[in-house]
Amino acid sequence: MGERIYTAGLVVIGDEILSGRTHDKNIAQVASWLQVQGIRLAEVRVVPDVAGRIVAAVEALRAENDYLFTTGGIGPTHDDITVDAVAEALGVRVIVHPEARAILERHYADKGGLNEGRLRMARAPEGAELIANRMSGAPGIRIGNLFLMAGVPHIAAGMLDALTGTLEGGAPLISETLGGFIPESEVAGLLRETERAHPDCQIGSYPFFRDGRVGSNFVIRSTDAAALAACAEALGEGLDAAGFAWDEGGVAPR
Amino acid sequence: MGERIYTAGLVVIGDEILSGRTHDKNIAQVASWLQVQGIRLAEVRVVPDVAGRIVAAVEALRAENDYLFTTGGIGPTHDDITVDAVAEALGVRVIVHPEARAILERHYADKGGLNEGRLRMARAPEGAELIANRMSGAPGIRIGNLFLMAGVPHIAAGMLDALTGTLEGGAPLISETLGGFIPESEVAGLLRETERAHPDCQIGSYPFFRDGRVGSNFVIRSTDAAALAACAEALGEGLDAAGFAWDEGGVAPR
Repeated sequence: MGERIYTAGLVVIGDEILSGRTHDKNIAQVASWLQVQGIRLAEVRVVPDVAGRIVAAVEALRAENDYLFTTGGIGPTHDDITVDAVAEALGVRVIVHPEARAILERHYADKGGLNEGRLRMARAPEGAELIANRMSGAPGIRIGNLFLMAGVPHIAAGMLDALTGTLEGGAPLISETLGGFIPESEVAGLLRETERAHPDCQIGSYPFFRDGRVGSNFVIRSTDAAALAACAEALGEGLDAAGFAWDEGGVAPR
Repeated sequence: MGERIYTAGLVVIGDEILSGRTHDKNIAQVASWLQVQGIRLAEVRVVPDVAGRIVAAVEALRAENDYLFTTGGIGPTHDDITVDAVAEALGVRVIVHPEARAILERHYADKGGLNEGRLRMARAPEGAELIANRMSGAPGIRIGNLFLMAGVPHIAAGMLDALTGTLEGGAPLISETLGGFIPESEVAGLLRETERAHPDCQIGSYPFFRDGRVGSNFVIRSTDAAALAACAEALGEGLDAAGFAWDEGGVAPR
């Protein structure tokens, strides 16, 4: 195909994820959103609220990808150090962003006004723009191809929404799913051969257990709709020939 | 304290996580399990089903931590390449593990017997031991301080269960949570000062939104029960002094 593929890295920042206290929801929502933008999520790193660990992850994933997203650590408290760490990774100063300060002043006007903690949320790496936050006061931060978003999932969702359609991406990865009560271990050869015969497609196999029976969903992914359709047809015929019943769209596991 | 801290890395392997199709559940369950073993989860990397990416993540997190766990990519299909990637990272050969083969022969005896795909699940890096899998046939794999587990969460849970109490850890990290309908931006100074005054404790601040109101849970973590209790008492007194109502145990967000 020779088509340009755009990739992104994601750094999820927060002790609460690594302690198991909070179940991350941002990986899945950033991943799904990127798919629609035609950008592939290439790697995720979850790191603690430790400056050196954030800096290392940001530097590594930034070097390898077109875009880098972070979630978490942009709030008002002492453990919110993402802005400082990213500024360090970029070699720029941290400034108080005038527009962010004005947004926060308005937001907190009837809530006691700005204080030291709230003012922290106006800090940004020098040269940054803001990402709109319609859910709560403090904006996200964009600096070049880096996007610093909130850790609270519904706030992060609003920030992604504000970015929709603004990033350059390639052809979106599209997928088709075939699934049934088929043990994947009985069709491993068929999957492998079908993928080999369709080089523009990848086939993923995802087993599930439901009502005491094993089954699998086979997800075919491609950026080329015709290649995808041909691969799905070939796999369906192969499953038919092997005597397995299957459903288009796959089986929802429970 | 000078106490030895044990750390672990986790590599989550699978295109399905990075595409947003599957919501990862293994990060949280591995994190929670490690806490009980007295081991801290230091970093997580989510990588695609690409050998070079798995090798790089395994090498990096293995070098930095006492233990390394992986989830995903140990099934019967062509996209299950974790064993090969880990063997490459360790510089050892892949062999068919006789005990794993015997387990699979028994498991599939009344299901059509072994075939090429099923036999794939008996492959292991040379020198590996097995991790029991009571949920389905194929075992997990232990080689030194590396633990290769299934991606399906309830199978991974069973493998963690089989490992419970077998790994050397330090004092478990214990925590206490105070929470209330308190905007974190109004107590940022108090949190910072309380943490500074209690150097054996970390305080995390986690905002939530519920019934149209903002609130926060403050999680204090320490390996020292007395230090934890003293810090929690100080924070509670600080919140009282600032006129905020709070609950021990925190507020469950919805």
